[in-house]
This record gives sequence, C-alpha cells and structure tokens, in this order.
Amino acid sequence: MSEQDHHHRTRRVQVGSVPLGGGAPVAIQSMTNTHTHDVEATAAQIDRLARAGADLVRVAVPGPKDTAALPEILQASPVPVIADVHFHHQRALEAVAAGVHKIRLNPGNISDRPQVERVIAACRERSIPIRVGVNEGGIVERRDQTKRAAEKSRLAETYHSGLIELMVEKLTRTIRVFEENDFTDLVLSAKSADARIVIEAYRALARRFDYPLHLGVTHAGPPETGRIRSIAALGTLLAEGIGDTVRISYAADPVVEVEDAKELLNSLKLRARTEPELIACPTCGRIEVDLIKLVQDVRRKLATIKTPMKVAVMGCVVNGPGEAEGADVAVFAGKGKGIICVQGRQIRTVSEDRMLDALYDECLKLAEQVASGQAQLSDAPLRVGPPAHPLADDGATPA
Amino acid sequence: MSEQDHHHRTRRVQVGSVPLGGGAPVAIQSMTNTHTHDVEATAAQIDRLARAGADLVRVAVPGPKDTAALPEILQASPVPVIADVHFHHQRALEAVAAGVHKIRLNPGNISDRPQVERVIAACRERSIPIRVGVNEGGIVERRDQTKRAAEKSRLAETYHSGLIELMVEKLTRTIRVFEENDFTDLVLSAKSADARIVIEAYRALARRFDYPLHLGVTHAGPPETGRIRSIAALGTLLAEGIGDTVRISYAADPVVEVEDAKELLNSLKLRARTEPELIACPTCGRIEVDLIKLVQDVRRKLATIKTPMKVAVMGCVVNGPGEAEGADVAVFAGKGKGIICVQGRQIRTVSEDRMLDALYDECLKLAEQVASGQAQLSDAPLRVGPPAHPLADDGATPA
Repeated sequence: MSEQDHHHRTRRVQVGSVPLGGGAPVAIQSMTNTHTHDVEATAAQIDRLARAGADLVRVAVPGPKDTAALPEILQASPVPVIADVHFHHQRALEAVAAGVHKIRLNPGNISDRPQVERVIAACRERSIPIRVGVNEGGIVERRDQTKRAAEKSRLAETYHSGLIELMVEKLTRTIRVFEENDFTDLVLSAKSADARIVIEAYRALARRFDYPLHLGVTHAGPPETGRIRSIAALGTLLAEGIGDTVRISYAADPVVEVEDAKELLNSLKLRARTEPELIACPTCGRIEVDLIKLVQDVRRKLATIKTPMKVAVMGCVVNGPGEAEGADVAVFAGKGKGIICVQGRQIRTVSEDRMLDALYDECLKLAEQVASGQAQLSDAPLRVGPPAHPLADDGATPA
Repeated sequence: MSEQDHHHRTRRVQVGSVPLGGGAPVAIQSMTNTHTHDVEATAAQIDRLARAGADLVRVAVPGPKDTAALPEILQASPVPVIADVHFHHQRALEAVAAGVHKIRLNPGNISDRPQVERVIAACRERSIPIRVGVNEGGIVERRDQTKRAAEKSRLAETYHSGLIELMVEKLTRTIRVFEENDFTDLVLSAKSADARIVIEAYRALARRFDYPLHLGVTHAGPPETGRIRSIAALGTLLAEGIGDTVRISYAADPVVEVEDAKELLNSLKLRARTEPELIACPTCGRIEVDLIKLVQDVRRKLATIKTPMKVAVMGCVVNGPGEAEGADVAVFAGKGKGIICVQGRQIRTVSEDRMLDALYDECLKLAEQVASGQAQLSDAPLRVGPPAHPLADDGATPA
C-alpha cells in the first residue's frame, strides 16, 4: 500500500507555533492536573511536560479565576497552551481574550447555537483553532441511562456500531454549525475507554472528514493497565496513517503520558529519537548472567546520554553480532565475560563485572564521535531519507 | 470492513490441547528463563506463567541435559510445552521423543536439509507442529555485517523493504522443505526489534501464507520502553485480524509478558476478561481529590475480585454517570464526598474517607449477585453474542 493510499490526508491548522495535520509531524500533547489558577504550580508542570517532550499542553479552565490566570501561564509556557472548556462558553471567550492558542469545546455540554457562534467569532478573529471532542460517555444523556442499558442488552455488535454512528453524527451536527459560520480551523476527536471503539470511531472520522484528528483513549485508568489499551488503539491508528496529535491519558503524573506518547511515536518512526534506544534479549534458559539486572543498570546509565544511538544488551555469546540488529554499541554477555561491539566490530572482551562500565564507556565515546562528525549512527539514514515507508510521516524534522 | 475481509484466515494446528489458527482464540505464550535442566525451578515458573494466563509455555533446550529434563517438566506442566531449538537439530529429536507439544526451529541456524528432514519425520510421526521463526538479526550472517552497513547507508526505504523481502524469502525457502515433505503443521514468525518492520513483515506473511502466525517483537528491552513498541506492533496486527498466538518478550520476569499480553487481548476484546476492568479519569485541574492515590488503592483492592465487572473512578461530580461509560460500579469523587453508583443507579453519597471502602463493598456485593444469577454485568452481552465486530475473534469462549 503506498503512502498516498495509506495516510489520512488532512487540512492543516496552526496552534501557536505548532502545526497540526497536512503532513506535519504528529504532535504530542498532555494536560496539567494542577489547579490552573495556581499559576506557579501550573507553569512548573507545563515546563516539566515540555521538557519531557510535549509539543502542546492543555489546561482545564472550570472557573473565571482559572481563565484569569492564563495570561501569566501563557507568558511562562515554552509550548502553546490549549484551554479545555466544558459547560460554560464564557470560559472559552475569556481564554481567547487571554491569548490561548487553541480551545477544546465539548459539544456534549456546550451546544447552545448562539453561544457556540460567539466562541467561533472570537476564535476566528484571533485565528485560534477549536477542537470539537465527543466522548462515548458524553453522548449519552443521564436520562438515557435506562434506554442505554436496554440497548446494551441487545447484541454487542448493534450497540457498538450504533454508538460509533451516534458519535460521528453528534460531531457532524456540531461541525455543521462551524462550517455554516465559515470556520474550518477544526480538530476532531471521538474518544472512548474501549480500544476497539476508539479504533473504529477514528477510522470512521478519517473516512468522513479531512480535519486533523486528535487521538485519545479516555479513562484508560492507571498506567499499569491503561497503557496497554491506549497504545493498542493509538498504535493501530497511527500505523494506518490516522492521527495528527495524540494525548495518552492516565490517572498518573502527566509526564508519564508524554513519555509513553514519545516512545510510541519513536517506535513507529513517526518521530526521530533524541535519546538512546535500548534493545535487549528477552531472558531465556540459555542465559548465564543476570540479564534483567544488567538491562536495568544500562537503562539507568543511558539516561545521561542524549544521542539517539541503538544499544543492545544480549545474553548469549553464541548468537553473535548478527542478533544485535545493527546496534551501535552492544554487549554479548556470556558466562563470566562479555564481548563489547561497536557498530558491528568486536572491540574487546571484558570480565562480567566490567561489562556495564565498558559498554557505557563505548557509548560515551561514540556520542562524542557523532557530535564531532567522526562517526555516523547506524540508523542515521532513516532521519535524512525521503518519506518512504507507509508509516513514516512526510513532514517530520528530527526533533 | 466485514470480518471476512478483515481476518487473516489460517489453517489450524493443534499444540497439545491448544488449537492455533482456523478461528481459534489468540493464544498467549511466554518462555521460561530458568535453566531448563533445573526441573523444579522450570516447573515452578511454568506454573506461575500458566496461572497468570499463559496458554502455552516455551523452554530453551540448549543442551542434552535440558531435553533430558523434559519428561518431568511435561508431567508437571498444566499447559502444553514448546521446545526452543537452535543450532542442534538433535535437541529437536530429543524433545520430540520426550513428548513435547511443539518445536520451534530457527532456520537461521538449522538449515541443513537432511537434518531438517529428520526433525520433520519425527514431528509428523507424533503430530507435533513446528514453528519456523526468522528474526531480523538472524537473516544477516556475521560476515555480511559490512555489506549490511553499506545497504543501510542507502535509503531507509530500500533497506526496510529489502529486509522484509529477505525475511519472507528465507521463510519461503524453509517452508518449501516442509511442504516437499508433506508437512503442513506449521506456525510462522518473522520478528524484529523494530515495530514497523514487525508490522510490515507479518502483513506480508498474512498475504502470502495461510499458516497460523506467531506474533512477536524481539529484543524489545525492559518493560518500561519495550511494552510500548511491543503493544504498538502486536496491537496493530491483531486489530487487523492478523495473529494466532502472541509472545511479548521483555528482559524481565516473564509473568509480566503474560500479564501484558492478556491485557492486550482483553483490550481488543479478543479474550473475555476474567477480572475487573478499572477505568478512571485522567487527572486534570478540575479534580478536588487525590485521584491518583484513589485509583491505585482501588486497583490493589480489586485484585481480590475475580468477576469481570467494569469499575470506574471519576474525579468530577459534575460529569455525572454518563461519563462512566456503562461501568458496573462507579465512584464520582468531588470535594469532600463521593457518589457511589451501581449499574447506572446512584446508591449513596459518602464522605471522602469512606469512598474506597464503599466502592469496594458494592463491588463485592455485585460479584456475589452475579455469581448467584441475581445480577448481570453490563458488558455481559459482549461475551455471549455472535462474533460481530471485525476485531472480535470467532472461536472464543469466555476464559
């Protein structure tokens, strides 16, 4: 399948300095969990999120004191800021006046047409895009719980396709209001806690609309289980070329969301790595060293290196360099000793207690050589070649 | 897309009591990291893996003392056992004689035709299937490192498609030997540490062969990063209907591999849950309680319940029951108090310090009612309805 068939072509909208859609790199976003009116805490968390790799940060603005804090937060933020608006369209107007870079509106609780049109007018004046996001939960009114329960008792199939249809329909009705007001700076989302519903809902959106899509699984829970369902859904969509910005959401420190989103984009080569990539043997009955400990030690040591080299920790001498899959620096750990390899060449054999340090030394040395232009990383061509693979994005610059 | 278009139709092979392919549920497998000749440790680990949800367990048999341990291990194992064979075809013959349920052969290091034919004859006699697995690393000979590096310096595109072609070609050549010997009890794999290569390689295998596919990302590293690339690749393939058995492989306790594989199949509804599913608000600036702590407390408490109810921990009273997305038991935590809901009905309001216990009590109560037939779980139809969704498997029985 060629990239043309594969990738969901979208318009481009501009969120401050960050473009979404139209071939732009997939942007990572997260959301603060501080009280937005606590400027110091919010600015500090935005900073942590940006340093972890967030391109955009969203903040909740439930009350007027939250929107009142936005000018100071915006001034401090190294990345564009999105205001998350529910229930009160007035918060959107205040956020726009404060200079926020994007608005998220929930059509599940802001649907009054004159109110929505006031927000549209304000955003158009300042060229501020709006995300219209429906959630599975949000499309069901409280009074419809009984009806919903009845519906659920029928076939799961009917329930699911009906649900996705309802989500798309709700979005379509909402979008019509924007389009009738000549406003097309839109980003769309349709979230659920169910990975399958997320996959099907976004596939439906991609077939129907050319607005950029904001991917997310809602209410995924704690990272321990939430990351599996989030990565399964978002990974599937991204691998199909669907999605222009992602937010992974856990009940956890939002920095974890950003780290996981970054690793996901790295894994699918939708974002160039800026840090080492660690590959390692799974453990098995052939291994003669404490590989799990060695891998974790290497992982911690590598955190100080900011060169995207590929580092391999292998538990079998017999498998040899072929198994390290083009690693820049590798150790093949056998009984009592390890062979250190750099870019396919065996450098030396060290005793087991020297493996960690010897590997780390070679990583440092290679990082310096790469920095000074004396060496090239084995994966380097991946970042300079033209877009080739259906899964590669076509506007990415190395981060 | 209908299930017919979507699902990769495969033959069925039988691994002891566990069928693979031909519409059978996707089977979870893992691999022991004990020395196989240490019967006690190996049997104990197989038991832990089976209890965690592994349908099949693989063991390495590098030496004759490892295959010699197989009869005792097989007798103790609650699940079928696979022997992982490299380099020495003799180990395969010994494992077959010991009564192992499946053999994995690596054509990268066992390719001598008379040797392979001896293994085929032995397996045919006992109706033992064979997995033929190539790894990205394994297809490159040591002496080809230089050539490989040269190839890499060309376009990443060429490298990738060339690599996938090589992997498929190697498998095709190997399979020919089996087919010429009228042996079709095959399972195929083509692994890499690169999620994109894994996705593309298995898509290519699914287009070309009707043998069941064993999915895996090799050398994924520690779970912290390895699970993202593993779930992205395996989730994408499973969501496309590709894959009959999965092994997630980390440099970690293999029980973690099984837990993650199980959560992946649960998330994609390829396996019915047997334990509670926890959904929760992501944290945000609207939250007035320590939601992260509450979620973790709930997660720990739920570990004792073996009923697949959906439990929601929400941080916003205002969002109301609609947002809990059909949870069986939910708490909506606001400032100083929480509303407890059971299957959409508000049961009571409790003070903040009572939320955890009140939620847990309702979960226990519901579990009892479900056990005695007085209540039905909200997701119950999903497990009894016909296969409907393209992502649902069509042979699954509730585990």
